[in-house]
Formats: sequence, structure tokens, C-alpha cells
Amino acid sequence: MEISIEQVAQLIGGMVEGNGQATVNRLEKIEEATEGSISFLANPKYLPYIYKTGASAVIVKSDFEPEKELKANLIKVDDPYSAFAKLLEEYQKLTAKVKTGIEQPSFQHETASYGENVYLGAFSYLGENAKVGNNTKIYPNTYIGDNVEIGENTIIHPGVKVYANCKVGSNCVIHSGVVIGSDGFGFAPQEDGTYKSIPQTGNVIIEDHVDIGANTTIDCATMGSTIIKSGVKLDNLVQIAHNVEVGKNTVIASQAGLSGSAKIGENCQIGGQAGITGHLKMADRTIIGPQAGVPKTITQEGKVWFGSPIMEHKDFLRASVILRNLPKLIDRVKELEKKL
Amino acid sequence: MEISIEQVAQLIGGMVEGNGQATVNRLEKIEEATEGSISFLANPKYLPYIYKTGASAVIVKSDFEPEKELKANLIKVDDPYSAFAKLLEEYQKLTAKVKTGIEQPSFQHETASYGENVYLGAFSYLGENAKVGNNTKIYPNTYIGDNVEIGENTIIHPGVKVYANCKVGSNCVIHSGVVIGSDGFGFAPQEDGTYKSIPQTGNVIIEDHVDIGANTTIDCATMGSTIIKSGVKLDNLVQIAHNVEVGKNTVIASQAGLSGSAKIGENCQIGGQAGITGHLKMADRTIIGPQAGVPKTITQEGKVWFGSPIMEHKDFLRASVILRNLPKLIDRVKELEKKL
Amino acid sequence: MEISIEQVAQLIGGMVEGNGQATVNRLEKIEEATEGSISFLANPKYLPYIYKTGASAVIVKSDFEPEKELKANLIKVDDPYSAFAKLLEEYQKLTAKVKTGIEQPSFQHETASYGENVYLGAFSYLGENAKVGNNTKIYPNTYIGDNVEIGENTIIHPGVKVYANCKVGSNCVIHSGVVIGSDGFGFAPQEDGTYKSIPQTGNVIIEDHVDIGANTTIDCATMGSTIIKSGVKLDNLVQIAHNVEVGKNTVIASQAGLSGSAKIGENCQIGGQAGITGHLKMADRTIIGPQAGVPKTITQEGKVWFGSPIMEHKDFLRASVILRNLPKLIDRVKELEKKL
Repeated sequence: MEISIEQVAQLIGGMVEGNGQATVNRLEKIEEATEGSISFLANPKYLPYIYKTGASAVIVKSDFEPEKELKANLIKVDDPYSAFAKLLEEYQKLTAKVKTGIEQPSFQHETASYGENVYLGAFSYLGENAKVGNNTKIYPNTYIGDNVEIGENTIIHPGVKVYANCKVGSNCVIHSGVVIGSDGFGFAPQEDGTYKSIPQTGNVIIEDHVDIGANTTIDCATMGSTIIKSGVKLDNLVQIAHNVEVGKNTVIASQAGLSGSAKIGENCQIGGQAGITGHLKMADRTIIGPQAGVPKTITQEGKVWFGSPIMEHKDFLRASVILRNLPKLIDRVKELEKKL
Repeated sequence: MEISIEQVAQLIGGMVEGNGQATVNRLEKIEEATEGSISFLANPKYLPYIYKTGASAVIVKSDFEPEKELKANLIKVDDPYSAFAKLLEEYQKLTAKVKTGIEQPSFQHETASYGENVYLGAFSYLGENAKVGNNTKIYPNTYIGDNVEIGENTIIHPGVKVYANCKVGSNCVIHSGVVIGSDGFGFAPQEDGTYKSIPQTGNVIIEDHVDIGANTTIDCATMGSTIIKSGVKLDNLVQIAHNVEVGKNTVIASQAGLSGSAKIGENCQIGGQAGITGHLKMADRTIIGPQAGVPKTITQEGKVWFGSPIMEHKDFLRASVILRNLPKLIDRVKELEKKL
Repeated sequence: MEISIEQVAQLIGGMVEGNGQATVNRLEKIEEATEGSISFLANPKYLPYIYKTGASAVIVKSDFEPEKELKANLIKVDDPYSAFAKLLEEYQKLTAKVKTGIEQPSFQHETASYGENVYLGAFSYLGENAKVGNNTKIYPNTYIGDNVEIGENTIIHPGVKVYANCKVGSNCVIHSGVVIGSDGFGFAPQEDGTYKSIPQTGNVIIEDHVDIGANTTIDCATMGSTIIKSGVKLDNLVQIAHNVEVGKNTVIASQAGLSGSAKIGENCQIGGQAGITGHLKMADRTIIGPQAGVPKTITQEGKVWFGSPIMEHKDFLRASVILRNLPKLIDRVKELEKKL
């Protein structure tokens, strides 16, 4: 679909500098863009590309003044990144196919129910008393267990498994291979060296506006609920153990792991491959670096932690420098010993 | 289902203190329990809650004497945790729906066979000559490859994939998304910089009473078998490479990884996100801390190791203290240099 | 199938020493081999086993001269490992069942197309305009989304999920549970503390001769493509974020994670559980150790890095020794202080 640069500017509330009648038909990154595409410049690191880009139009900040000649037409806005995200959204609306209806073969237990405008893909399974809200899309090869409730406008991608009795809210996106409600890892050691499973009788509650990345696993609670609060974003391959609570709007990067009964605050950020010990609390707005190990409760809000075991970020940076200089320290001690 | 506290006491062999006629109908955690529920007190950390809990009854140790007035009725037993686990078990028996029969559509090759009282969920697949024992439950969307044998009383949760020729024992629980028998990671470098796959012709053998957590992966052997011995418990997202052997009753926490041909002893404990190098042996009853890295064979039994690369636990604790105090050490060396 | 040792020798271009008429019918590891099997000796670590092995024949290097009496017949070749790999390959050809045809029930959209000699397993799904090349095998319970293209001679194991618009090349092997094309982890923070998803409109391109291990996840690009180049080998549970590029013939071990927009060179090796930060470049032939953390661009080719954050391998080895000896250093400083 061809659209003029002037029309794009109107859509995002911007001002054109250059030829508003030229047309574009796709979005591209500034460093790779070719003629007929529209791009954006937000990160100053990418500034040099604006003089080289093949894009027909680039969205820039209102105060941007080129220092050299440039080929691209400009659209000036207050916030180029948000404006471009809006374009991506419009683009996705136009191009993404909205699925509806029930593909066959699929399985709906006679007691299962679902709202209007849903999609139930081929080989999807709705167990006894499962409930699916309006506009929710259940992709193929997906398992929704007995008594599971899923809200409205939620997308369940192919191959997701939701165990019996769990709840998923509205406006969530659950990616392929996610497992919700598997047994918590609880075993009582016996005198003969074997272990006996502790029955896991609870469930998982996923609130609204939660995104969960591919192949992430969330165990059910031993009793009660493992809870993922509203607005939480989990990346791929994250592990959430039994009885964990993740506070509102907390973001957890790929391959991080949270052990049993950890209580994570709101608006925290946990880096990739970080590990969080069980039965601890983490204060709101805590930031944990990648590969960090958190052994105990963090009570102060809004602090940044790195390392395993964690230390405050400034101490971590200092420790890194010291470690690099240890050989020199040893030489200095040798020197002292010689002198004495 | 309402049940009197006296009846609960009889079930777990305990003595009532308080009103045995009062009734309960659910299990709750002591810190969250409300009227009509039964709870337990085992960990002394939770002692203060017994004076505040809303639970109608709390299971406590025989020698427990309250220091303040309490509202809850008590049931005294020798081991509150085991008694409560027994209740959880009874509760699960009452509430968990036991699945049986063959849901359609599902796929059973004409040469596949299965015992009595099995469940074969919709969209489950039994390949050529696959054999499933009595009382085993195969949930929906599950793949059981050619010549696979599965024992009795085993639960295969939705979306498990078992490659051809693998074996799974009796009384196992395999959680959603587990992959058993994928190719080992073996490639021979060629002169032109490419790699050639080494054919992986072996299988995986899972013995009895093994639990495997969601999305864990177990590769087949190049030749022979990757072996998970009786009583092993694997958490979610664990990686077991080709030709690994995990000894009886060993427990491995989430996101740990074992490289090719590692031989792990019996009754070991491996912490979350730990990494074990290939072609090594680990002695029985070894304990490996979370995020640890094990580069070589451990010959002494029953030792505790932390860090990457690992050191003995006491050395690890000492090293952590020293690291924190390194800035001071540098100051002391500076002081010495000034004096000389 | 019985085959004489002489016939084996002809197959791999070797010379028999001993009884060429004796027969073998299987391949076994030298330390476990029993009568009637054929084995090999490549790694000198396993030399002692040649005098004890039960194998009827052992493939050895041309210049091997036994120092003691041995029971096994020998086949001498230039490269025992490659010769044995060839036997494994022949064995696999004989024993592995080649699947063809379309099992029912399965789902092919009326616009989907596929070549000759394909296998489409039960409960597999081909979306709108999906294209599958000649000789490609799509195992059961697999999801191939709209507009996906898959080349020739590729194996898609059970339970793989490929999102719409992604491409998979020829001669690839994709193991169970792999997710290709899930959304990149991109969220714009809002003023009220919530996050807004950045639409992910790109795809994933997997070139030819790529192997991908079980439950590995590869996110689509925000715009453009996440690219896995020809000959790349990924192990199990690896995370590849949006807009990553992995260069030709690079090998990545289990549980490693690559953050968004990382550009990895050709013929690199990345160890298990290593973490790579986003928006960096890694030079060709770089080797990254297990559990390492790579915080920034590596410009020099062919270097070996360990640790988190990484240092050159020789520095890492030195640092490990120094760390172990820190207590002694402290004692030496104390001694100096006493003297002064």
C-alpha cells in the first residue's frame, strides 16, 4: 500500500520538511533502509546514518537540524521512537491476519464455553468447564486444561499448555511452548534416601496485560496461587517456581530463574540469566543485572545490583577494576618484601 | 466437603486440643489461612503466625505449648510437615480428576499397544510398536515415537515429546514440554570450516519413580543410552546432554545443565543454573550450589561446592569476604609503601 | 545384520589385522563393548581399554602398534574417528525409518503446498500459503504458520512451532519444542509505570544446513529479519533474541543466550550458559567459554575469552590462581605490617 509522506505526517502529528508528495510503502531500519521506505532516528548513535540512508523519509526530533546535505525527506515530531512505534502498530493492524472461528479437528469438552469472535485453532483442546473470553485467540496444538479461565482479547500462541484450574487474564500474549501450572519442585527426603513428592494442589494466576515469552515455565503453588500481576513482561525461557509472586509491571529477561516463594516487587527489572533464591522479598523498582545471583531479601527500593552474589552496582564496577589489577598488587607486595 | 477436626486427627494419627467437632473444608498456609481451613506449623520462622492465623485448626508438633492465647484448635502429631503432606495427598486424591479412556481424535499406530485403565488424550500420538503400561495417563498433544516403551502408573503431561526407541519407567511424572531423545550435540569439524553431524544412534532410558519438570530436555546417546536412574528428580528447563548418567535419587534444580558423558553419582544435589562439564564423574552425595561451574571430576563423596569454577563451600564463603575487603587490602599496601 | 570385519574394512578403506572372517552386528563404545560389536580408538585417554575390550574389532590409527597381547581384531585407517562416524551413518541409514506420506488427521490449508516425498505427521498444521520442499519431513504435533517456507530435505521434529512469515532452509534439522518467530522482547515504558509492546513485524530466516536443539527459542525481528546463517549449530534451550545475526558455521552450546541485535561472526564457538549483551559485534572465530558474560564488542578475530565479564583466557587462568591464593597474600601483608 502506497501512502504519501504527508499522510504519514498527519497520522503521527508531525511536520514534513521536503517532498510531502513522495510515497512510501514499508518501514525499515535507518542503517538498512532503501528507497520507498520510511525510517526513524532516535538513538544519537545512529546519527551518521541519516546522511547515508536510502529511506525516502526519516522521522526525527522537532529540533533536529541537519549539518550536511541529506537526501531523505524529514518528518519532525516530539518523540520519534513513539511515533515510529505507532506506525509499526498501524502496519501490524493492516498486515496481521486476524483469526476467527473454529478450525477442525479441534476438541472442546461439552462443558467448555467461549465468547464471541474467538479463534480455536486445529488440534487445540478445551477441557471440562474451560472458559474462554470474547476475542481471545487460541492457536493450534494448544492445551487448555479443565476449569481454566482465560479472559478477553488474549492471544495464546501455538503449543501453549495451561494445566487445570489456572487463570489467564485479559489482553495477555502467551507465546509458543509456555507451560503454566506444572507441579512445583517439592520433595520430602525419606529415610531410605528416596524422595516423596509433596502434592502440588494450588494453581497459577496470570493477571491482565501480561506478556510471556516462548518456552517460559510457571509452576503452580503447593497451596494457593503462584501470581503474575498485571502488566508483567516475561521474556523467553524464564523459570518461575511454585508460590512465587511477581509484582505489577516487573520485567524479567530471558533465562532468569525465580526460586520457590520469592516475592518480587513492582516495576523491578531482572536481567537475563539472573538467579533469585527462594523465600525472599525484593523491594519495588529493584534492578538486577544479567547473570547476577540474589541470595537474600532486598529491602531498599530502587537500587541497582550486579554480580553473584550481588553487590551494589558501584561496588561491582570497583571490584571488577581491582580484580584486573590484582597481579600488580602482588608485584607491589613482592617489592615490599624485598625491601624489608 | 466438610470434615470434623476430630476426623482429620484420626486420619493423621494426632491428638486434638480444642473443639474437635468444628469442621474444616480446605488446606491453607498458616500466614494466609482463614476460618474453615486447616493449616500446619513446622518451620519455627512461622511461629508468630500461630497466634494470628484465621485457620480453624493447626497441626503442630506434640511438644508444642502455646505461650499466648490462641484461637485455633490444635492437632498434635510427631511430624507436622509429613502429616500435612499426607492431608495434601488425600485432598489431591479427592479433587484431582482421574482421566481414563481414549479421547478422539487421537492416533494409535496399528502396532501400538496399551494396558488397562490408560488415558490417551486427544491429539496424542502413539507410533509404531509403542507400548504403554497399565494405568498410565498420556495427556493431549503428546508424541510417543516408534518403539517407545512406557511403564505403569506414569503420567505424561500435555505436549511431551518422546523420540523413537526411548524408554520411560513406571510411576514417573513427565511435565509439559519435556523432550526426551533429541539428538546429542555432536559435530565433526571439516576442513572447509563446516561441521558434519555425528549420527546419534542411541536412546534415553528413564527408570522408575523419576519426575521431570516442564520444558527439560534430555538428548539421546551417540551410542548406547543416556540414563536417568530410579528416583531422580529434575526441575524445569534442565539440560541433560548425550550419554549422561544421573545416579539414583539425585535432585537437579531448574536451568542446570549437564554436558555430554558426565556421570553423576547417587543422592547428589545440583543447584539451579549450575553447569557441569562433560566427560567427568561426580561422587555420590555431592552438593553443588546454584550458578556453580564444575570443570572436573569430584572424587570425594558428600562434599559441598560453590562458585565458578567450584571451590569447597567454606573456601567460597572466605573468598566472598576477602573480595569484599580487597579495597582495604589495597589501602594497607599503600600505607606500607609510604612507610618504606 | 551380520557383516564380516573384512567387509567393514572395505567400507571404510582400512586394513584388517587379525581374523577378517569374524562377524560383527553392532557399534559400541570401547569401554563397554561386548563380543560381536565393533568399536574405535581415537582419544589416547581410552588406550588402556583396547587391551580389555570385548569388541570383536576395533578401528585404530594406521600407526598403532599394540604393546601387549590383545583379543580384538584391528582395522587400521588414517582417521579412526571419521571412519567410525561413517559407520554410524551407514548404521543409521539401515535402521532409521524414513517416514513419508500424510498421516490423518492433519491440517493443510487449501493454499498450502508441499513437494514430493514429504512426511506430514498426524496433528501437524500447515497454514495459509505455507510451502514445504521435496523430501522434507514434518513430524506430528507441529505448527507451520501462514506464509512459512521450508526448503528440501529438512527434518522438523515433533512439536516445533514456526510463526507466520518465517523461512527455514534446506538440509536443516529442527528438534522438538523449538520456537521460531516468537515476538522480540520490546516494550516502551509509559509515564504511569506500565509498558507498551513495540509491535514485532519482522521474521526469522534460518539458512541451509542449520541444526537447532530441543526447546531453543528464536525471536522474530522488530523490523527485517533475525538471521541464522548457513551451517550454524545451536544446542538445546538456547535463546536468540530479536534482530540477532549468527554468522556461518558458528556453534552455540546449550542454555547460552544472545540479546537483541547482537551480530555474531562466522565460525565462532559459544559455550554453555554464556550470555551475550545486545547491540554488539563478535569477530569471526571468537571462542567464548561456558558461563561467560560478554558485555561489549569483540573486534579481534580468533581469540579465546572466559569469565563474566570476560577476559582473555590466559588472564582468566591467572586470575583463578590469584583468587585461590588471596588468603596467603593477606598473610604476607600482615607479616609486612608486623615488621614495620
